Amino acid sequence: MSPTSPKAIQDDYPDDLSHCFGCGRLNQHGHQLKSFRDGDGDADETVAHFTPGPAHVAIPGFVYGGLLASLIDCHGTGTAAAAGYRAAGRALGSSPALRYVTASLKVDYLRPTPLGVELELRGRAVEVKGRKVRAEVRVFANGTECVRGEVLAVQVPDTMLGASGPGAPGASTV
Amino acid sequence: MSPTSPKAIQDDYPDDLSHCFGCGRLNQHGHQLKSFRDGDGDADETVAHFTPGPAHVAIPGFVYGGLLASLIDCHGTGTAAAAGYRAAGRALGSSPALRYVTASLKVDYLRPTPLGVELELRGRAVEVKGRKVRAEVRVFANGTECVRGEVLAVQVPDTMLGASGPGAPGASTV
Repeated sequence: MSPTSPKAIQDDYPDDLSHCFGCGRLNQHGHQLKSFRDGDGDADETVAHFTPGPAHVAIPGFVYGGLLASLIDCHGTGTAAAAGYRAAGRALGSSPALRYVTASLKVDYLRPTPLGVELELRGRAVEVKGRKVRAEVRVFANGTECVRGEVLAVQVPDTMLGASGPGAPGASTV
Repeated sequence: MSPTSPKAIQDDYPDDLSHCFGCGRLNQHGHQLKSFRDGDGDADETVAHFTPGPAHVAIPGFVYGGLLASLIDCHGTGTAAAAGYRAAGRALGSSPALRYVTASLKVDYLRPTPLGVELELRGRAVEVKGRKVRAEVRVFANGTECVRGEVLAVQVPDTMLGASGPGAPGASTV
């Protein structure tokens, strides 16, 4: 990131919550999706761009639906974070961190998504209620909406913090 | 696969429909999920096992939700194929191939899924109607249900076959 680049929502996640395969900046094997607030209006609209790799295929020529669900998932929780901060009247990224995980995900594949082009994800928070945010995410390829998702995001529960089981990532593996 | 191993549903997909990142046996970079019919009863029940890698993390210690959605997606379409063949009174894998893609996906994350253990996916076709199959998939870790999914699968439309755009996989890339 150059000094003048805008900061992504995920760039403000605390280090210990930045290992996510979809959007964690510290997960070298993951997608490292970057979501940004879009515009200065009151609406919690967000945007992200991602170009699937050649292996991210479903039927030849089209993007794998599981990847699309993954991008929607992470852009949805990023959108939730932006909306949560705004609802609390706090600056994006201020401490303590507002970090969300997905409770429920709905994805409608409206048409096949072509592989080989950059995708645009546009998100919008449609409800902020206590620890929950409901976000809509639409995925466009060549300007055409191909996929529509809905994410019910909740603030990370305390039971998920500080886990150190066999799957906890070490610096050498993630 | 040893000569005596049971054949996975995906092992019978035609070569040109076996590049899927989630379950294509020809995608060397993908998950290569293998789904099997379970039992000899009339019900279209299926089972698959998958152990996420250390990079497939959400919050440290727990499995990335996008991966779980991906596994549900592919196990759901595999379950659909098994159900489609059975409904047509045809042997699994017989030609012409019955291959399904996902039209809609719903995933409920009931509780955090621990990373570092083998997951079991159990599928069931709940409706077979024309070219569509609705399948339910449940994901278990250590015997506890962590995630529940629903997949609306449709037979691959002709418009998705024979694509050769810039994203079509070549032998060297997928």
